[in-house]
Amino acid sequence: MNSRNPTACIIVIGNEVLSGRTQDANIRFLAQRLGDMGMPVREVRIIPDVAEVIVRTINEVRAAYDHVFTTGGIGPTHDDITSECVAAAFGVPWEKQPVVWARMEAHYPAGGFNAARQRMATMPRGAVLIDNGQTIAPGFSMGNVHVMAGVPAIMRLMFDMLAPTLQGGIPIVSRSVHAAGVLEGDIAAGLTDIQAKYPLLDLGSYPYYRDGGGGVAIVAKGTDAGQAEAAILEVAALFKSLGGAPVAGEPK
Amino acid sequence: MNSRNPTACIIVIGNEVLSGRTQDANIRFLAQRLGDMGMPVREVRIIPDVAEVIVRTINEVRAAYDHVFTTGGIGPTHDDITSECVAAAFGVPWEKQPVVWARMEAHYPAGGFNAARQRMATMPRGAVLIDNGQTIAPGFSMGNVHVMAGVPAIMRLMFDMLAPTLQGGIPIVSRSVHAAGVLEGDIAAGLTDIQAKYPLLDLGSYPYYRDGGGGVAIVAKGTDAGQAEAAILEVAALFKSLGGAPVAGEPK
Repeated sequence: MNSRNPTACIIVIGNEVLSGRTQDANIRFLAQRLGDMGMPVREVRIIPDVAEVIVRTINEVRAAYDHVFTTGGIGPTHDDITSECVAAAFGVPWEKQPVVWARMEAHYPAGGFNAARQRMATMPRGAVLIDNGQTIAPGFSMGNVHVMAGVPAIMRLMFDMLAPTLQGGIPIVSRSVHAAGVLEGDIAAGLTDIQAKYPLLDLGSYPYYRDGGGGVAIVAKGTDAGQAEAAILEVAALFKSLGGAPVAGEPK
Repeated sequence: MNSRNPTACIIVIGNEVLSGRTQDANIRFLAQRLGDMGMPVREVRIIPDVAEVIVRTINEVRAAYDHVFTTGGIGPTHDDITSECVAAAFGVPWEKQPVVWARMEAHYPAGGFNAARQRMATMPRGAVLIDNGQTIAPGFSMGNVHVMAGVPAIMRLMFDMLAPTLQGGIPIVSRSVHAAGVLEGDIAAGLTDIQAKYPLLDLGSYPYYRDGGGGVAIVAKGTDAGQAEAAILEVAALFKSLGGAPVAGEPK
């Protein structure tokens, strides 16, 4: 989109998403919020709770993107291994984090700060805490890798704490238009021409289906609202030239 | 899980998922269906409509997993480039597919089979068609890469046609138990011991939240139902030993 826009990658860590047990609810939230900040998500990886895969994936994507956001795997159970994997990926010790350790030790009744919970107070050396205001255990940032909870409500609170510390870019704005009864195959050539005229925009074409019919929605995304509006006006004219009745925005 | 279980990878191709415009609805469906077939999904990648990224990703994952399932990017518009990228990944020509070409030519009124729709009848040499019984344009398999539509209703029809042609493995079964008022941090040590006793199972721990409380659900997955049941019985005993009241299955 724009060379001044930092890029983001999301890593969803968890067998439960890969097995279909759980419908992921974090990707869309992060994608929208990061887009609003001008930090478009360029890739998402969903990977299992397997140390070697987590370490390899983190190292691959932290080199390729400006920021990496992980969700999942920071609880107290045996399948929560994200934190130690981040330490391994960065080649730093995974050690007692004194602030979190003291906080959790004070929080639990005697004996409650057991070995499992002590793992949540163990972090890569150099980690910067991401609190969430609701649970005692924080996530953390390690370089450009931001490690958050998998539970959506907690992840969102963590992201709210993290976001103001990140340098975004020009916000990605979006303009759209749709028309019922229009077929993608009929507008494709005209759309290709419009895309070619606006190379800095992403022009997306999305057929939709409704009872007894449907149509096409066109979405222009980019950092220049004026260009997005101009492109969408041209798409509306294209719809009209094919007998369609363009309506601003996306279909309800 | 089991060396006799082939592995699967899903590639979701589409800017609309990365931007947060669209909530993906294909990953969970495919993950569940493939799990039932004994072909667990080991990784998911969500990538943009960028040719170089699509080609590189396909080549990376088709070498790493037994089967690759792509969704999205096979329509007629400029942002639909999956098919030509698969040809490039396999190093084969992207050419007129005679069966699809003839079918689509007959389907549309004069002039309707335009250049944009002709792209949907253009495929990598050697592609095996995946019909869907609803729309005229098929997906295709190229080696171990199965190329399907992004629209969920069409993708599901295609998968229904494709699935019987694939050799699965031992179905992945799942058993579960949950208990309200139990905290992950209290069961973690016992759970680690149970996981160690059943190395062929994946034991997942999932906290849940309800008005005024919550608890933990434990899910055992694997190819051996007897082992999964035995492990879950041990988890139930663990819950009881901590004062919990275990209930079979996952929380409603």
